[in-house]
Amino acid sequence: MAKTDNSTRYRVKPGSKVELQQHDPGYDNGYTKGSPEVEEKLARDLDRICEWQEKLYAESKQALLIVLQGMDASGKDGTISHVMRGLNPQGCAVASFKVPTPQELAHDFLWRIHQKTPARGQIAVFNRSHYEDVLAVRVRKLVPQAVWKARYDQINDFESMLTQNGTRIVKLFLHISREEQKKRLQKRLEDPKKHWKYSPVDDQDSRLWNRYVTAYEEALSRCSMEAAPWYVIPADRKWYRNLAVAEIVEQTLAEMKPQWPQRPEAPAEGGEHV
Amino acid sequence: MAKTDNSTRYRVKPGSKVELQQHDPGYDNGYTKGSPEVEEKLARDLDRICEWQEKLYAESKQALLIVLQGMDASGKDGTISHVMRGLNPQGCAVASFKVPTPQELAHDFLWRIHQKTPARGQIAVFNRSHYEDVLAVRVRKLVPQAVWKARYDQINDFESMLTQNGTRIVKLFLHISREEQKKRLQKRLEDPKKHWKYSPVDDQDSRLWNRYVTAYEEALSRCSMEAAPWYVIPADRKWYRNLAVAEIVEQTLAEMKPQWPQRPEAPAEGGEHV
Repeated sequence: MAKTDNSTRYRVKPGSKVELQQHDPGYDNGYTKGSPEVEEKLARDLDRICEWQEKLYAESKQALLIVLQGMDASGKDGTISHVMRGLNPQGCAVASFKVPTPQELAHDFLWRIHQKTPARGQIAVFNRSHYEDVLAVRVRKLVPQAVWKARYDQINDFESMLTQNGTRIVKLFLHISREEQKKRLQKRLEDPKKHWKYSPVDDQDSRLWNRYVTAYEEALSRCSMEAAPWYVIPADRKWYRNLAVAEIVEQTLAEMKPQWPQRPEAPAEGGEHV
Repeated sequence: MAKTDNSTRYRVKPGSKVELQQHDPGYDNGYTKGSPEVEEKLARDLDRICEWQEKLYAESKQALLIVLQGMDASGKDGTISHVMRGLNPQGCAVASFKVPTPQELAHDFLWRIHQKTPARGQIAVFNRSHYEDVLAVRVRKLVPQAVWKARYDQINDFESMLTQNGTRIVKLFLHISREEQKKRLQKRLEDPKKHWKYSPVDDQDSRLWNRYVTAYEEALSRCSMEAAPWYVIPADRKWYRNLAVAEIVEQTLAEMKPQWPQRPEAPAEGGEHV
């Protein structure tokens, strides 16, 4: 069966208005869970990602920044462990952004973010990011409206500067339904291996959920750029989420097209190494 | 004698075109070196700067970033030791930006800069800065033209973000004449206490000098903003340079107007500290 190309299907077109209810969190693009087709495709994309990473590292001219955002229990950690685990850790770092420290709060909101951006040749994965400053911070009213409203432009300027300086940015919104979130949070309470992930804060009432949806819609609509696009990933099915993310990361690296560096010039006849 | 207000006299009006030969590096605004008037004014401004700093620190809502740029031997170190020495070091840090390390070069040019921006309540002094990336880097052709040309906008975006997040920026170009530079470089060779400052690189031929002038003129013209203005400081006379810089820093702090925080609310009748 012909499948749609995920790297364009889920991309938020710059300037377009995102309505999350138009995006089905349970979508699977016609794939079947556990089918050989799915297993092979995922394995192939993961292999290619590793090959691209080797070239990216050797070339040392470009960097890749992968931003992961999503509601609680949307699968950010799972995506990292399933899709990014094959990467060479020497060329890859994950940065998790939690509640800011007093020192971080004493600076502009991009200060701690900028420190973790990838060097040329590297891949950085952000588990949450500067987008929390127009998401959680907005929803929980931690700063005045005028402050968070100014941040969309500040984010676009910052990301433009990064892309102009050689960093490709891919932003993935892991889109789950309210029902799936409830199921997963319940599981955290029941499964001893998942207790540690549970926090009472996770139990959001519906009003809070809806305010997050509005905040995400504005961030996705205002901050998707050609060189730093947002993707809305259907994430109710973990296996499909991994498939889609792997495909998008692979396609992005293919577009970046890192190359093995040229072999250094051989020393000229009679030349010597000094 | 009525003197002009330095904080507006030397400010580069946003959008205006700077021609350095229109600015006299030997200007002294009618003051006399060593006169009681000069000594008293400098002492008064330095005192006020210290008072403002205490409030800035206590208030912890705004930050001040002072950027020092100028040709070799223009007096950046001297300005810091004469004008900034009275500040409380707990609330003030000097960052010197030298030739970038390989790690710094592997990131965008603002990466190392952002890490040193002042936290709220603090004053940071940059001895050289991100402007080197459109000055030395341009003059010495260290990156392609397209790269440094894109940096003016990147700098303005970056500084706008900082100012919108509570950091006032004052940028001081210490303007010396070619003759004065030659004299000072010669002195570095002759004075054993100044030998360490001498480097053969300092001996620029005239062509290099002129290219720096052009580069400075473009940076001053394109990157002077209301909340982050450039000042062209006459710097051939060290005593006058100090006087002018102190006045500008004092005026800037007066405009920022940091306030002593309110006394905390007394606990309510019968209330307890928990």
